[in-house]
Amino acid sequence: MKNRICETSQANFVTALRTAVLTTVITLGATSTAVADTYDVASTFPKNMIFAGESAEHLAKLIENTTGGDVTLNIHGAGDLVPAFEVLNAVSSGSVPMGWDFMGYWGGTIPVAGLVGALPFGPGPDVINGWMWDGGGHEILMRAYGEINVMPLPCHITSPEPGGWFNTEINTPEDLRGLKMRIAGMGGKVMERLGASTQQIPAGEIYVALERGRIDATEFSLPVIDNTLGFQEIAKYYYFPGWHQPSTWQTLLVNLEVWEGFKPSTQDAIMTACMANVNWTLAIAPAAQGAQIQTFVKENGTQVRRFPDAVLEALHAASIDVIAEEAARDAYVAEAYQSIQDYAAKAQYWKDIQTLPIFDDK
Amino acid sequence: MKNRICETSQANFVTALRTAVLTTVITLGATSTAVADTYDVASTFPKNMIFAGESAEHLAKLIENTTGGDVTLNIHGAGDLVPAFEVLNAVSSGSVPMGWDFMGYWGGTIPVAGLVGALPFGPGPDVINGWMWDGGGHEILMRAYGEINVMPLPCHITSPEPGGWFNTEINTPEDLRGLKMRIAGMGGKVMERLGASTQQIPAGEIYVALERGRIDATEFSLPVIDNTLGFQEIAKYYYFPGWHQPSTWQTLLVNLEVWEGFKPSTQDAIMTACMANVNWTLAIAPAAQGAQIQTFVKENGTQVRRFPDAVLEALHAASIDVIAEEAARDAYVAEAYQSIQDYAAKAQYWKDIQTLPIFDDK
Repeated sequence: MKNRICETSQANFVTALRTAVLTTVITLGATSTAVADTYDVASTFPKNMIFAGESAEHLAKLIENTTGGDVTLNIHGAGDLVPAFEVLNAVSSGSVPMGWDFMGYWGGTIPVAGLVGALPFGPGPDVINGWMWDGGGHEILMRAYGEINVMPLPCHITSPEPGGWFNTEINTPEDLRGLKMRIAGMGGKVMERLGASTQQIPAGEIYVALERGRIDATEFSLPVIDNTLGFQEIAKYYYFPGWHQPSTWQTLLVNLEVWEGFKPSTQDAIMTACMANVNWTLAIAPAAQGAQIQTFVKENGTQVRRFPDAVLEALHAASIDVIAEEAARDAYVAEAYQSIQDYAAKAQYWKDIQTLPIFDDK
Repeated sequence: MKNRICETSQANFVTALRTAVLTTVITLGATSTAVADTYDVASTFPKNMIFAGESAEHLAKLIENTTGGDVTLNIHGAGDLVPAFEVLNAVSSGSVPMGWDFMGYWGGTIPVAGLVGALPFGPGPDVINGWMWDGGGHEILMRAYGEINVMPLPCHITSPEPGGWFNTEINTPEDLRGLKMRIAGMGGKVMERLGASTQQIPAGEIYVALERGRIDATEFSLPVIDNTLGFQEIAKYYYFPGWHQPSTWQTLLVNLEVWEGFKPSTQDAIMTACMANVNWTLAIAPAAQGAQIQTFVKENGTQVRRFPDAVLEALHAASIDVIAEEAARDAYVAEAYQSIQDYAAKAQYWKDIQTLPIFDDK
C-alpha cells in the first residue's frame, strides 16, 4: 500500500517535524534556554546562619528567578564540600564552581581582598557601595581575582560590625598587648601591630575556642549573628564601635570558566540579582541590631562599652601603617586604597554640604 | 499515486508536527513565554534627562533582561502621552499602563505620596531605603495606591537635593515671605507656611518661568540634573542643605490590573530589577555632585550658600506643623509618619553606637 513517493513525503514530514521543533527551540532559546544547570556553592558560613548565610539563599532565589530557571545555586555550609578557608582555592581550581564568603578572608592570597573586604576606619556601607559600582571598585577586584581564575561578585554588604566581645575592659592601647583574639581580615593585622595575638577562625569554631580559653576575645559579625554563636554566654563586654569593619563585603565567587560559559544575558541577570541582593542587605540590617543589643544587656548581663578615644586613635594609627605597608607590597592594594580615598572624599564633600542640623524630634 | 492510508499518514504527520511544536512551546513556556509584551510608560520627566529620566531607561533594560524579554517598557517623556501631572490619573484609569514619576507630585491625590516622596527634614537615602523594604513602607504605599488601582514600585532614590536656586540672599525666615518659588512636594507646603507663594511646575517649563520672572526661585533636583535645565545661567545663589528632600523616591507606577495580570515569577523578576535599580541610584549619585557644583562656581559665577540656622529652624518648625496637619487629615500619612519615625530611631541608635571619631585622613 506504500509507494516511493508517498514514503518520500513521509520522510519529508519527519524532516519538517525535526526542523520545526529545532527552530522552535532555537527561537525560544534566544530569550531563554530550557536547560537548568545547578551549581554547587561552598560557603564559608554555616548554611542557615542568619543574614550571612541567609543572604546566599536569598541571592540564589533571585538568580534562579532572573535567569528564568537557567541557573540554580545549591548552597553548602562551611565544611560540607571543603573547609571554610579552602573555598577560594576550590573555586579557583574549579573543583567547586562557586563560593560564598567574607571577602576579607582571602587577604593572604589576594591582598586587595583583605583591604576591600573590610577596610579599618574606612567608609560605611553607602560610600563603599558607591565606590564598588561607580568608583571603579569592581573593576579592580575583577583584575585581581582574574589572576587566579575567579570572577568576584560582591553581592552583600554588612552594616558596621561591633568591635567585639571581651572578658577584660579595654581602657588603654596597652590593654590590647598580649590579648589573644579571633579577628578576621585586615583588622587582625592592626591588632597584631598593637601587640595582640590574632587568629582567623571560622564561625563554627569560635565559641569553643573562647570557652576553652584558646582566645580571650572575638569579633564575628552583627549582633543578630553573634547571638546565634552564643558569645553573650561566655563574654562580659561588648565593645563598640566596629573600627575594623565599618562596612564588609560578602562575595559570590564564580570560577572564571563557569562565568565565561554563561551567555551575556545570563551574566546580566546574575548581576541584577546581585545588585538587588546588595540593596536587600543594606535595607534589612540596621534596624534589627539595637533590640538585639538590648536583649544581651537584659538577658545576659552583657556590658556595652565604647573603646576610649585613645584606643581608637592607636588603632587608627596602626591601621594607617598596616595599609601603607600592604600598599607598598601590592599594586592592587595601592590602587584600590587610593581609589577609595578619592571616592570617599567626593562623597564626603556632598555629605557635608547637605548635612542638616539635628533637631529634637530626631 | 496517493492512497487513503498514505494520505492519512501524512495527515497524522501534520498533526504530530503541530502537536510537537505546541508541546515544545508549552514546555519552554514553563520557564519563559515567548510572548514579549511592550508597555508604554508615561514619564513626568523629559525622556533622556540625566539620572531622573535615565533611571527609567536603566530600569527598563533590567526588567527586559530579568523577565527574559517578556516585559518591555517603552518610556515616553513628559507630555508625549499625557501631561506630566496627569501621569497618575492615566495609570489609574488604565489609559496608560505604566508611569514614571517623582512620588511627591501626587500629594494632592494620595497625601501619603507627598509625605513619603520626600519628607522635609526626614531620613537620608540609607534609612528611607531600610524603611521602605524592612520597615513596612512599601506595604503602606501599596494599600494607599491600591485604592486608586495602582501598584507603586519605588525603584529609585535620589540623593539629597539642594535647597534651590535664588536671586536674593536668604538671611532670615522673613526673606521667604512673598517669595514666588517653584518647589515640588511637601516642601512647597512648608514654604507656604512661611509666607512664600509656591507652584509645582514640571521640569521642562521651569527655566522660562524663572527667566520671565513668574517665579523668583526654584529647586528641581541634583546639581547634575539642574545643570541640564540651565538655572545656573539665570540664578545667582545655590542654597544648601536640601531640607525639603533629604531623600526622594521616584516610582514605576503600574496599573493594578496590568500588575495582577503578570504571573508571580514575572512580578518577582520586576521587583528584583526594581531593587537593583534602587541600588544603582544609591551608588551613582553622590560622587558626581561636587564637581558639578564647582563647575557652576567657576563657569557661571554661582555663589554657593548655606541657609542660616535660623532659617532652617523656622523651616523645621513649619514642617512639623504641616506634617501634623496632614496626619490629622489622612490615616495613611499618620501611619507612615509614625512608622518612619520609629524606624529612623532604631537606625539612629545603630548609627550612633557605631560612629567612629573623625581623623585627619578623612
